[in-house]
Amino acid sequence: MSRLVPPHGSTELKPLLADPAVRKDELKRTEKLKKIPMTSRETGDLLMMGIGAFTPLDGFMGRDDWLACCERYALPSKKDLFWPIPITLSTTEDLAKSVSIGEDVGLWDTETGTLMGTLKVAEKYTIDKEHECKEIFQTVDPEHPGVQKVMSQGPVNLAGPVKVLSESFFPKEFGSIYQTPMQARKLFQERDWSTVAALQLRNPMHNSHAYLAWVAIEVCDGVYIHQLLGKLKPGDIPADVRVRAIDALVNKYFRKERVIQGGYPMEMRYAGPREALLHAVFRQNYGCSHLIVGRDHAGVGNYYGPFDAQKIFHEVPAGALAIHPLCMDW
Amino acid sequence: MSRLVPPHGSTELKPLLADPAVRKDELKRTEKLKKIPMTSRETGDLLMMGIGAFTPLDGFMGRDDWLACCERYALPSKKDLFWPIPITLSTTEDLAKSVSIGEDVGLWDTETGTLMGTLKVAEKYTIDKEHECKEIFQTVDPEHPGVQKVMSQGPVNLAGPVKVLSESFFPKEFGSIYQTPMQARKLFQERDWSTVAALQLRNPMHNSHAYLAWVAIEVCDGVYIHQLLGKLKPGDIPADVRVRAIDALVNKYFRKERVIQGGYPMEMRYAGPREALLHAVFRQNYGCSHLIVGRDHAGVGNYYGPFDAQKIFHEVPAGALAIHPLCMDW
Repeated sequence: MSRLVPPHGSTELKPLLADPAVRKDELKRTEKLKKIPMTSRETGDLLMMGIGAFTPLDGFMGRDDWLACCERYALPSKKDLFWPIPITLSTTEDLAKSVSIGEDVGLWDTETGTLMGTLKVAEKYTIDKEHECKEIFQTVDPEHPGVQKVMSQGPVNLAGPVKVLSESFFPKEFGSIYQTPMQARKLFQERDWSTVAALQLRNPMHNSHAYLAWVAIEVCDGVYIHQLLGKLKPGDIPADVRVRAIDALVNKYFRKERVIQGGYPMEMRYAGPREALLHAVFRQNYGCSHLIVGRDHAGVGNYYGPFDAQKIFHEVPAGALAIHPLCMDW
Repeated sequence: MSRLVPPHGSTELKPLLADPAVRKDELKRTEKLKKIPMTSRETGDLLMMGIGAFTPLDGFMGRDDWLACCERYALPSKKDLFWPIPITLSTTEDLAKSVSIGEDVGLWDTETGTLMGTLKVAEKYTIDKEHECKEIFQTVDPEHPGVQKVMSQGPVNLAGPVKVLSESFFPKEFGSIYQTPMQARKLFQERDWSTVAALQLRNPMHNSHAYLAWVAIEVCDGVYIHQLLGKLKPGDIPADVRVRAIDALVNKYFRKERVIQGGYPMEMRYAGPREALLHAVFRQNYGCSHLIVGRDHAGVGNYYGPFDAQKIFHEVPAGALAIHPLCMDW
């Protein structure tokens, strides 16, 4: 009998996406609210909360959680639950001033002009951005793409519970490859898998990835080839081409019944080790018991040592995660 | 930098073997004490406590620990520490009657006539042997070799802290293959390993074992080929032949720098799933982060399903063990 790992810090998934039946009415009501624009990173994080991939978060983090998350991987508001990267929303000083505590505001994806959800503002606060960058990226170098995003975000953070009202273009553009944790768990259970290794992909799958997946299938019931569907840098291979390339590999070189392909709507932060931990947290929500961590996982340039993202798993307190790293030097 | 898993339920190993400098005097003093004979299983367990492989046990279990260990894998005397198989000492009614609570008694290995250590008797108690067999072996079938040992052991259990005064013939007979957890950890650290997969062997190493080890090396820094050096059934291959066979395999077919061979002085119980958990517990003490669990691990006959010893790891409470199973269907 299939017996998947439990969601992170919760007995059940907590998707924050409104029921499809009420979404239309909610959107109508929400259109009239004050508009808060989101960056593509923030939109991705909101979607992750919407589909339950960031279980058990209720919304964007307040200052106490932001600080403890940066400094000690813990969320005081959730009994010090392990969490490796802040999930925050920022805005301009003017917009922040115009909003009252307790007010419902509309969250808009600026890139597509889509109304994505609502936030009930519980807190407005400023942060030391350099402190966040040093803790999360281990650098304040403005060339680092993750640092860039933090340094250029608005000066005030808005925190509070969110309701998600749209999945944007993901269901339409990516079809069955775009999967919520609940959908992925159902696929695993249908195949009677209990142990599943997630293979993080943001590039086309090459020979070393295939080798990692082959090894993973030896020690797990199946492998979940799980790719990032968020926005790409110019020149990167579009997701639909990647999907077909993976299909070709799987069909020719794998025991097909041991492989499932899926995708998730988050954006890369390139935080290396810290991001590997976040990858573990949300893969646990997807039902994966293992995360494959290869060479320079979620890294960029030369900011991190090739195996730093493997070593950081030693920092995870005993019992904090039900998912384990599957570290391989490829 | 090498960073091995911590010992089980303790920040440091707790070997109960007396310092070599005082052993001679202690033995002399102990020879005069009342003599309690031990079965080969009990001698093996005492040695495991001696070398720190059963950290953090202080001696043979009392009734509360015995019962909770059988029924819920927990030791009340150690804040409900996870422990999967009772470690007990039994004796005859007459001998039990002749011993007082608080008395120091000598523990003798009946097979070799060796004085092995002392026990300070803290408790005398009887058990429901069938209950132990049902819980631990899932059977009371007298054909089961583990059941046989329990059913034929003395009717009274003696519990209390032990001091170990001899390593018997192991250091002489097995040389550098016989390793304490402290010695194994030192070997791992010298090679700068942090993650180590233990490969349990009680038979000559064959092709499937080699394959398991190859896969393990992909996901761990090294593999510890760790064989049972306890008493063998008639017709089994002697340990020295096995050691040379493993050497031949390792030298010809492995990246030698990723493999270490060692042995431990315990006897098989053939408890299948429960024994796989005990194998995990003491391999954690040896510094291993992973235990390879293949087909019918520690099984005998048809008492256990081929993958029961993999599935039982789902019962381990979160954070109870720092070692993880590496389950492979070979």
